[in-house]
Amino acid sequence: MSNKLDTGIKNARNVNRYIFGRGAIQQLASIVSSRRNSAKDQVVFLIDEFFKTFPEPLGGLPRQGDDLVIFVSTRDEPTTDFIDALTEEAVSKGGREACAIVGIGGGITLDTAKAVSNLLTNGGHAADYQGWDRVKVPGVFKIGIPTLSGTGAEATRTCVMTNQENGLKLGMNSDHTVFDQLILDPDLTATVPRNQYFFSGMDAWIHCVEALSGSFRNPVGDAFSTQAINLCRDVFGGDEMMSDESRAKLMVASYLGGCAIATSYVGVVHPFSAGLSVVLGFHHCVANCIAMMAMEPYYPREYREFVDFVEKNEVHIPKGVCIGLVESQFDALYQSTIIHEKPLVNALGVSFRDNLTETRVRELFEKM
Amino acid sequence: MSNKLDTGIKNARNVNRYIFGRGAIQQLASIVSSRRNSAKDQVVFLIDEFFKTFPEPLGGLPRQGDDLVIFVSTRDEPTTDFIDALTEEAVSKGGREACAIVGIGGGITLDTAKAVSNLLTNGGHAADYQGWDRVKVPGVFKIGIPTLSGTGAEATRTCVMTNQENGLKLGMNSDHTVFDQLILDPDLTATVPRNQYFFSGMDAWIHCVEALSGSFRNPVGDAFSTQAINLCRDVFGGDEMMSDESRAKLMVASYLGGCAIATSYVGVVHPFSAGLSVVLGFHHCVANCIAMMAMEPYYPREYREFVDFVEKNEVHIPKGVCIGLVESQFDALYQSTIIHEKPLVNALGVSFRDNLTETRVRELFEKM
Repeated sequence: MSNKLDTGIKNARNVNRYIFGRGAIQQLASIVSSRRNSAKDQVVFLIDEFFKTFPEPLGGLPRQGDDLVIFVSTRDEPTTDFIDALTEEAVSKGGREACAIVGIGGGITLDTAKAVSNLLTNGGHAADYQGWDRVKVPGVFKIGIPTLSGTGAEATRTCVMTNQENGLKLGMNSDHTVFDQLILDPDLTATVPRNQYFFSGMDAWIHCVEALSGSFRNPVGDAFSTQAINLCRDVFGGDEMMSDESRAKLMVASYLGGCAIATSYVGVVHPFSAGLSVVLGFHHCVANCIAMMAMEPYYPREYREFVDFVEKNEVHIPKGVCIGLVESQFDALYQSTIIHEKPLVNALGVSFRDNLTETRVRELFEKM
Repeated sequence: MSNKLDTGIKNARNVNRYIFGRGAIQQLASIVSSRRNSAKDQVVFLIDEFFKTFPEPLGGLPRQGDDLVIFVSTRDEPTTDFIDALTEEAVSKGGREACAIVGIGGGITLDTAKAVSNLLTNGGHAADYQGWDRVKVPGVFKIGIPTLSGTGAEATRTCVMTNQENGLKLGMNSDHTVFDQLILDPDLTATVPRNQYFFSGMDAWIHCVEALSGSFRNPVGDAFSTQAINLCRDVFGGDEMMSDESRAKLMVASYLGGCAIATSYVGVVHPFSAGLSVVLGFHHCVANCIAMMAMEPYYPREYREFVDFVEKNEVHIPKGVCIGLVESQFDALYQSTIIHEKPLVNALGVSFRDNLTETRVRELFEKM
């Protein structure tokens, strides 16, 4: 794996603007107001449902007139039907003319905001745009405000969603999917439950670990990944992962980790994690952590560091998740893991199937 | 200096897109062609004069029809008159209708391309836009291709120029000054003279060192600076600063260092360096290195690392540059150093004049 191949020369698209700092959410009012040409111009707020009953951290939305506030359920990860339903709700209330979309929440909410933004201007259904570069015109101007750190959704050109009809879990990979503006305010992650905070944070760490262990490499991606890993190490190897300083660092790590994704690939963890999500319904970040617990053969040093993080921060990773599964479920787990060829080639080379036989894959799932 | 103040909540603007990789310059043709609506659409190429007699590294420009190629002299750093003259030359040949500007070169050429781009669409003269947010409308779509690493000009929202009428050295600080597209191809720095390569590279290292030693801080800026410094350490503390791997790393460090500038301030080195440039005409990067040689009292650890870099890479830093200067020149050096209040407050606090007395400043210049 020391043979560094190039990732191919990709044209990476950055988020246009970002504001970083404690209390940065207070800048939302002026940013939103700069998007309104008249007082009647509508803003669509898509907000993690958590803030419905606990709105204090947001400090009052700059809401007026016909603005729409839609709370986004985070019980399940987004499906294309879910995105279509939310888009329809927005459209029925005038959303096609919205001057801005504001997404406030974790990866689910941010991805939802990106997808709805694209659909409002492009028309059609979410499933029409799953894939690469299928979005034709820019979406509604979109502002992302993460309230959870780690997935990097704030910085990427995709928005992951599952099409339940055909089982396809694939985002709208497009330059148009990238946020126009980010507000990165580490005060907003103070109320995240500790387990969730850890799982999400580990998403950044894990994809950077996978990227740096792979054979498809790019010096820019490597630099972002290295710094994100160092920040995660400070946070999860330090005294208190949720101190003010740690939350600020993890928010930076998440952003840099998201930037790294543009020029890197993941490895063995994400395909297994995808299996857990598709077959057993685990959310992405906890699924990564569950998978990581069986990754000692592939990432021995990182596995030990991960276990240290878990113990040090006294978090709970679900165990024994594959106990009692039937043959057809193991088969589905194998299929939905092995399908991720690009990351597996990145990690193990083109002959990855020689290593990841059906028996071997099952053994690994049984360890989780 | 351990008391971290916030830099204030700034809305940082990223470069829209970047391509990073060896041979990336080959992508220029398709990018330029995507900007032309018709074959008659003009592209303006502003190119470091070095490539006039040695065009091979650029591999053939995608030039056609009425395209303009202007070679930019790098003997002196840009003045407002120089920018105006280049703009006039472009305008006289139809440049106001240009569909793209391509800047290929070091900081001088990139800054020139940014400034000319703004002037072609905004009209008027360069001096009209020196300052903050005075540029009214977006410039011509601009593509930056650095052939030297370190200044970060490829990533910043300014383009430094001196107004010789009033002595003001100040850029067009504006979101409109940021490049729309970068092509970062480390093969293009293979022919840089070793001293120049070192001086420019040290610009990234020095401003990141100053930023991380200052009291105005931002976690995003800190992350970019830290990683840029680590990369510089690999490059200048490693075996060969100009190997393929080192040149790739330094190009990344330059980009990250440029990104750091948006949310950080420099310290003591840059004000002294500015003095050397304004009064004695030294170019920015060599002036930084000359100044750094007298910075042991302010950055003791970094000073030692810098001296190690100089010795290891066998580069030559001009010495004794203030020998034989007259009183009025020392006075001018003092004035043009002490005027940089913000970085000096960042480094030394609001009472920086107690430390940097006229005598003390003169002593430091005499050590250079």
